[in-house]
Amino acid sequence: MASPAHLDRAVVEGVVRQLVMERLAALTRPGESALAVHASARHMHVSRSDLDQLFGPGYELTVDRTLYQEGNFAARETVTLIGPRSRLISNLRILGPLRSRTQVELAFTDAVSLGLEVPIRLSGDLDGTPGAVLMGPHGIVELKEGVIRAAMHVHMSRGDAAHYGVRQGDEMKLRVGGDAGLTFGRVRVRVADDFRLDVHMDTDEANACGLHLTKEIELFK
Amino acid sequence: MASPAHLDRAVVEGVVRQLVMERLAALTRPGESALAVHASARHMHVSRSDLDQLFGPGYELTVDRTLYQEGNFAARETVTLIGPRSRLISNLRILGPLRSRTQVELAFTDAVSLGLEVPIRLSGDLDGTPGAVLMGPHGIVELKEGVIRAAMHVHMSRGDAAHYGVRQGDEMKLRVGGDAGLTFGRVRVRVADDFRLDVHMDTDEANACGLHLTKEIELFK
Repeated sequence: MASPAHLDRAVVEGVVRQLVMERLAALTRPGESALAVHASARHMHVSRSDLDQLFGPGYELTVDRTLYQEGNFAARETVTLIGPRSRLISNLRILGPLRSRTQVELAFTDAVSLGLEVPIRLSGDLDGTPGAVLMGPHGIVELKEGVIRAAMHVHMSRGDAAHYGVRQGDEMKLRVGGDAGLTFGRVRVRVADDFRLDVHMDTDEANACGLHLTKEIELFK
Repeated sequence: MASPAHLDRAVVEGVVRQLVMERLAALTRPGESALAVHASARHMHVSRSDLDQLFGPGYELTVDRTLYQEGNFAARETVTLIGPRSRLISNLRILGPLRSRTQVELAFTDAVSLGLEVPIRLSGDLDGTPGAVLMGPHGIVELKEGVIRAAMHVHMSRGDAAHYGVRQGDEMKLRVGGDAGLTFGRVRVRVADDFRLDVHMDTDEANACGLHLTKEIELFK
């Protein structure tokens, strides 16, 4: 399914979307934080020990491009994910920095193409999720669990949370206008001092709402 | 991208979804029509002359399975669609009966994989849309235009339209509950005496809302 050419296009699109969304964000009323919306293509986060196994002991990720949230980056490194029926996703991008547990985030479309049943979970909530085999240039990791479809969520600072009147763990709504206009009803709130106001959705969700085309986006309780 | 194995899975999923949705529909309050929701995988409708060219003069489609709307069916026949950069979608399913113009309906994900810019249109509204090359066992059709992403729409009878207080061309909303809960804001109303109450969405939209998992669906103005 994922030929290198496809992935390259996905990455290019990701960058274009990011630019579009950041431009949109600049239209926000003064006094509010600018709202950014990013579509995350399938990717993985990796633990120290799994990175050692995939790329060799002590290996360090190299930054391909920095992401919107401070300190996060898309690495140059990718792995091959092997699903239960020997179906592959090649060039699965690693995002840095390292995490305590390895986690693979797929869109539902990806999960179907692999033949995997993937639950919708918040990042880090991995107990009981399916596993997969990961193949790097140095070796293989048999991931027992950690494959999820990421629940849509919004990062925000305490100030933004106060502005919207929400707290960590609350749910908000995101209305996306345009020809494919729709409202996502379950956007989970994640609050941290250094978070920039930023909604993350997966590529299925972005494709459903025509995120790349839209001019009107609104986040509300 | 579209290996035969994938398409088979897509078809199987389509059938499963249909069964699930029809079961859901049975939960509707008495006195109302049962609401069905179907996810349409990529497919095409074909004209008499294009079918002649693709499969041979006078060729007749064979019914693989009947669809929810009276008289409509998935044919056994498929074609290969060739996009602008020689990327392919193989096993593109033909739906019957024949139409006055050939029309290809893709999800946005399909369009990206082909490298095509595909507008969101109502069925039959094809002027100015992109074309593609179609390849059948008998010959090739160079489609000048006719590739769209189908706008989400609901089929209904006059009685249903009266029940909801809507008319042909109006827009309604569809709320889909569950973990990926969202509300589609632009569901176009199509009214005909013999239509069964039935929302059509594409696979991107179905994947975004977790249609296969959901238990709560509501159509409203």
